Amino acid sequence: MEPSELVQYLYEKIPLSRFMQISALELSEHCVRLGAPLTPNMNHRATVFGGSASSLAILAAWSLLHVRLHISSPGVSIVIQQHSMDYERPMNGEFAARASLAVPDQWPRFLQALARFGKARIAVNSTLEFAGELAGRFSGEFVAIDGR
Amino acid sequence: MEPSELVQYLYEKIPLSRFMQISALELSEHCVRLGAPLTPNMNHRATVFGGSASSLAILAAWSLLHVRLHISSPGVSIVIQQHSMDYERPMNGEFAARASLAVPDQWPRFLQALARFGKARIAVNSTLEFAGELAGRFSGEFVAIDGR
Repeated sequence: MEPSELVQYLYEKIPLSRFMQISALELSEHCVRLGAPLTPNMNHRATVFGGSASSLAILAAWSLLHVRLHISSPGVSIVIQQHSMDYERPMNGEFAARASLAVPDQWPRFLQALARFGKARIAVNSTLEFAGELAGRFSGEFVAIDGR
Repeated sequence: MEPSELVQYLYEKIPLSRFMQISALELSEHCVRLGAPLTPNMNHRATVFGGSASSLAILAAWSLLHVRLHISSPGVSIVIQQHSMDYERPMNGEFAARASLAVPDQWPRFLQALARFGKARIAVNSTLEFAGELAGRFSGEFVAIDGR
């Protein structure tokens, strides 16, 4: 999947992602990195609103699973179940979220469970980045549901 | 503070809240309840996007502290430090977030710490509501900073 294809999909399906002006900076099966500018995502302190930060982290994590499942399991839908988020530094400019699997070795077992039960759970982490430094940490649990 | 005053403040300071079309349904020192329609907050399954759900929960929790500190401590700024979020049911229509202090008895100690150190921490919970039922749970930790 091309970065532009992912962004187009998100803009179309999740209007908030369009308002946030997200972009896809990196896209592979190991890592998805999404970026967003400050202006639409600002809070009362002229730094990034916590809701925008967690939305970008969720979108990056969700997109990683979407990219990985896109070819092997096109009918599968991915839904968030739980997440936690630590805000470590205020971000007063363009920011990014980099998502990767919490435990890459669990992927085969995840696919097996999905094939067997039509439903499986997996953990994805995202780190928030601002000005080349770590600004926050996100841990999410997602459920994949085979709708075919 | 009037509900319309809070909404106007949020719309002005946090553009995402305007895009989400949030409204203030209830506003007191015990509870802040914010609502939002589905359309701007939709995901790929035509239910509420997790980022919108957590943003509404954050805004409700933040607003509760803002309302409580508005009169006693007008120069104080409130920042989120950490949160966790459980998504318990999909929401496919108008939804709400109701915030209250995690431990109301801690408020006096919070104000004392704020007066003494110019900085204090407090926990706020929000519940997500859809069609009259509980749809999710948010727990957040906020820091109040006296900028005067």
